[in-house]
Amino acid sequence: MNKITRPEDMMVPEVTTGPITGSTKIYSSPEAHPDVKVPFRQISLTDPDEPTFRVYDPSGPYTDDNAAIDVEQGMPRIREAWIKERGGVETYEGRDIKPEDNGNVSGKALARDFPNKAAPFRGVGNAPVTQYEFAKAGIVTKEMIYVAHRENLGRAAALERAGQAVADGESFGAAIPEHITPEFVRDEIARGRAIIPANINHPELEPMIIGRNFLVKVNANIGNSAVTSSVEEEVEKMVWAIRWGADTVMDLSTGRNIHNTREWILRNSPVPIGTVPIYQALEKCGGDPVKLTWELYRDTLIEQCEQGVDYFTIHAGVRLAYVPLTANRVTGIVSRGGSIMAKWCLAHHKESFLYEHFADICDIMRRYDVSFSLGDGLRPGSIADANDAAQFAELETLGELTKIAWDKGCQVMIEGPGHVPMHKIKINMDKQLKSCGEAPFYTLGPLTTDIAPGYDHITSGIGAAMIGWFGTAMLCYVTPKEHLGLPNRDDVKTGVITYRLAAHAADLAKGHPAAQLRDDAMSKARFEFRWEDQFNLGLDPDTARAMHDETMPKEAHKVAHFCSMCGPKFCSMKITQDVRDYAAKTNAGKSAMVEAEQGMAEMSEKFRQMGSEVYVDADKMKRANDALG
Amino acid sequence: MNKITRPEDMMVPEVTTGPITGSTKIYSSPEAHPDVKVPFRQISLTDPDEPTFRVYDPSGPYTDDNAAIDVEQGMPRIREAWIKERGGVETYEGRDIKPEDNGNVSGKALARDFPNKAAPFRGVGNAPVTQYEFAKAGIVTKEMIYVAHRENLGRAAALERAGQAVADGESFGAAIPEHITPEFVRDEIARGRAIIPANINHPELEPMIIGRNFLVKVNANIGNSAVTSSVEEEVEKMVWAIRWGADTVMDLSTGRNIHNTREWILRNSPVPIGTVPIYQALEKCGGDPVKLTWELYRDTLIEQCEQGVDYFTIHAGVRLAYVPLTANRVTGIVSRGGSIMAKWCLAHHKESFLYEHFADICDIMRRYDVSFSLGDGLRPGSIADANDAAQFAELETLGELTKIAWDKGCQVMIEGPGHVPMHKIKINMDKQLKSCGEAPFYTLGPLTTDIAPGYDHITSGIGAAMIGWFGTAMLCYVTPKEHLGLPNRDDVKTGVITYRLAAHAADLAKGHPAAQLRDDAMSKARFEFRWEDQFNLGLDPDTARAMHDETMPKEAHKVAHFCSMCGPKFCSMKITQDVRDYAAKTNAGKSAMVEAEQGMAEMSEKFRQMGSEVYVDADKMKRANDALG
Repeated sequence: MNKITRPEDMMVPEVTTGPITGSTKIYSSPEAHPDVKVPFRQISLTDPDEPTFRVYDPSGPYTDDNAAIDVEQGMPRIREAWIKERGGVETYEGRDIKPEDNGNVSGKALARDFPNKAAPFRGVGNAPVTQYEFAKAGIVTKEMIYVAHRENLGRAAALERAGQAVADGESFGAAIPEHITPEFVRDEIARGRAIIPANINHPELEPMIIGRNFLVKVNANIGNSAVTSSVEEEVEKMVWAIRWGADTVMDLSTGRNIHNTREWILRNSPVPIGTVPIYQALEKCGGDPVKLTWELYRDTLIEQCEQGVDYFTIHAGVRLAYVPLTANRVTGIVSRGGSIMAKWCLAHHKESFLYEHFADICDIMRRYDVSFSLGDGLRPGSIADANDAAQFAELETLGELTKIAWDKGCQVMIEGPGHVPMHKIKINMDKQLKSCGEAPFYTLGPLTTDIAPGYDHITSGIGAAMIGWFGTAMLCYVTPKEHLGLPNRDDVKTGVITYRLAAHAADLAKGHPAAQLRDDAMSKARFEFRWEDQFNLGLDPDTARAMHDETMPKEAHKVAHFCSMCGPKFCSMKITQDVRDYAAKTNAGKSAMVEAEQGMAEMSEKFRQMGSEVYVDADKMKRANDALG
Repeated sequence: MNKITRPEDMMVPEVTTGPITGSTKIYSSPEAHPDVKVPFRQISLTDPDEPTFRVYDPSGPYTDDNAAIDVEQGMPRIREAWIKERGGVETYEGRDIKPEDNGNVSGKALARDFPNKAAPFRGVGNAPVTQYEFAKAGIVTKEMIYVAHRENLGRAAALERAGQAVADGESFGAAIPEHITPEFVRDEIARGRAIIPANINHPELEPMIIGRNFLVKVNANIGNSAVTSSVEEEVEKMVWAIRWGADTVMDLSTGRNIHNTREWILRNSPVPIGTVPIYQALEKCGGDPVKLTWELYRDTLIEQCEQGVDYFTIHAGVRLAYVPLTANRVTGIVSRGGSIMAKWCLAHHKESFLYEHFADICDIMRRYDVSFSLGDGLRPGSIADANDAAQFAELETLGELTKIAWDKGCQVMIEGPGHVPMHKIKINMDKQLKSCGEAPFYTLGPLTTDIAPGYDHITSGIGAAMIGWFGTAMLCYVTPKEHLGLPNRDDVKTGVITYRLAAHAADLAKGHPAAQLRDDAMSKARFEFRWEDQFNLGLDPDTARAMHDETMPKEAHKVAHFCSMCGPKFCSMKITQDVRDYAAKTNAGKSAMVEAEQGMAEMSEKFRQMGSEVYVDADKMKRANDALG
């Protein structure tokens, strides 16, 4: 892991580069599309008989040893040609940056703007611009081809290797195919069941898809706040979050330099960037929600559309009538966007301007293909408030708005809670699917208890794994600092890894055809005491290695056929291996073991004849006997 | 937190003492039983209007500022009088300690034996000895009275305070009463649905109960191994584990000084101690499973019965016929006990001596009231091996053995897996309940994916919360070091806290009548910016406080009405409070807000008339309106 540092110019963010330990970046093209280069991470194994193992990789060029990283230059604009090629867009001068965009700071306090900006694109007339519009028109875009190849994850080869489909999950009505084709992707997007968040002004993006019939995705939040953090830190947080597996990143910055910070992030981000535009709008009116206006908000939307933000959280479901439903809650309204809008509605005694202007918002977002992430401004902030009238009233409204957005040609996903005890999680998923026409669900956690501050990545990881299994398409991470403070570098990593394992547990349980291959590769390495492979096949090789080395630091221990859990004389895995070896050896020597086997073969036959429930797997028992023979 | 240190005698273990931050130890007696003193932890809150909050507390006298801790003396023998009073037992000289009990070490390498040992008790003739026998005979023991009071957790007072039962869980057929009575405890034990692990030679024990209709419990494993760790460390690990909430502790020591280490642990442990006797038996025959004999094992059982071990893991379900069922597994047999027995069975081509001598084992354990923890020696060690024929064949046998143990008067619980993807967890619980006559289930995790070494407390915490919800009575913790090395102090704490939050999430989802009170107290403190109360109501006040202080260390920030997540100007909780205040204020001033309220009242009425699904909670809306008025 290296740091790109330029001590002569502290304005250029330092970012972490270099491959994840034990792996290399590769690019693979789908058949017939050599110009589409999809990144994967390839893990090398120490056993020469084991093929390298390929995993999904959202980390961008930062983990590519062969890539030249120049944060000041930004990432290559790989989608620019695709966007131009399909037409219907124009470049134009764009909105002028105003002092208020950066919180009216100036001089040394103003973060330098990104030096290398292109003129923005926007859609022209009624020609299709969004992935949804192309999909509806029956057109397969390059983005769709890209994500199809990416989702397959070398699935065909892997399945061939395994010799069988190993998935046997319960998908609760999802329709996960054996193999993902570009046409399947198109169809899912056209049905509103998946989105590819991909602003035409974020051509640096490596496209990814969010939908119930694809791999479960993870979002990480970053963002400075009035109290702490800087531009440099935020760019590095993005790079750091995707390094460990974040599929999208939300920039939740408030305070100063929002515009310029976001520009640096976008120009260097291979993953979709989401924002909550009302945060910036609020900054522009001095932090007083009462002063918010549609004009101010509209201007902020255009500002961020032009920059290339891929999805906007818009709390248009917080209607005036729902606000009183929260007054008796234990924790009121905990969503920042939700509470801003609630205050605005009450102060003006008016319906939310986001709700009133929803069609206008659609028209703006469509021109840039910014996806909706319809915000759950009334999500519960405590176990006590889970699944209450306010929450579900808003969800119904989000369903109503989804249909409007689709009619306008926009891509949509729906945000969900929050704090929900385990027995109330599934009803959230079921209601969301029903109310919102199967638009992808994107949930925060949910946290399954309130009593463990400092461990809310875990209280929520439990809920996230479950709701992911039930059908949530993307999980918004929670870090250990939730409720306590702004996450630092370690917290971001812990949050991302926790959510990656939750998403994977969900993929396994849903029956994603290739999900279990990584578990199997890991378990095989574990059983064969290939320590290096165990570390490298894991989500976090560095931590696994460091933990192992705490008790057994010597290099020789890395190939030791035991671990410090049991010690050399007393290791269950070693004993099992001995059982197999012993069985094989004694058989070769025609020793007493033959008798044992014959006895077992007879027993096996007897059990088979009995047909007892316990021994239903008689064939497996036969194979076991064969293995012993 | 203090350390008891005696530099002049390094043989006396140092242990951590002093209360958990923000709380004090109290003792409470059930009505009519002033001699039964049940410990609780009482958390003081900063808001004078909020009563102190009482929580379950397995940490023993170590967290009592008024207790005199003398590790060399051991804990007070509170149950001795109860045991003598009900009769049917005798004291006797007991078995001589042999050099092999401590791995044949001598001189300086031999850990000093505990200096203050009493003669052991044993049952005489057919008089009832075990809690199961007393329960069957219709006798309510002091232990039953104790645990009934402990489980109620001040439930009556708390429910009264809340003004309503807040539980609305899904218990999957469990029968959790509003209030726990000693008679309910007796009945559950008599039905085999709960156990109080309480060896008559562990009179220091503060009794606790394990069963589906009680609070979900957590076990922590400790234990030296041939590679690392010492007697002192192990005693402190026990004290440390219970400090953070372990309800029982398993001593999985192997290697040297097993006997003496265990004696120190038992004499100082307020929680039940479990062991796997075959580990020590194996030490006695030089680590070669083939040399194990029934006589050696029997002698080890008696050795540990006399010491006061409260439950034994016994892998009597690993039958000769099942061993070949594991040969094609990805990870074979991963249970240490299971692999030892498998090797023994194959080598001798004989049925397991544990299975053959099961009735003899029962006769021994009954005399001391050692509970069975029937081991799952064939549990899956990987996702690939979950729920296979070997695992479920063994489970059927454990059901068979359960009935034998009950007939012999013993208490029984059943161990469960292991590595299981989410969609295969519930079938484990359902099969266990059916096969084993509702005997309590005690599971390790299960881990819901194999791919995250270093984070297996989380991969397994997900499965633990789920299986706890489904009906598992006790969760065996997994630490971050699982698969990598022996856990250190921090790992033990992380493992225990993770499992405490999983157990609590399960209690909430099952609908334990008082479980949500702590969540509510926490959420209320959170909403009211009572930072100190948030920390102290949590499972780990020290970590929560440290995390908060990283970004806002100043004392003044502890009462600040904002946190570093959003900063002072931009805090959703503050805005919600403002919404409430604003509503109240403007109403008092007969301002425009009145109009808003009237409008809302009308709307509310309209919704009520509509009776639409969204607005089913019209009464709540009415209350909300009232609150605004």
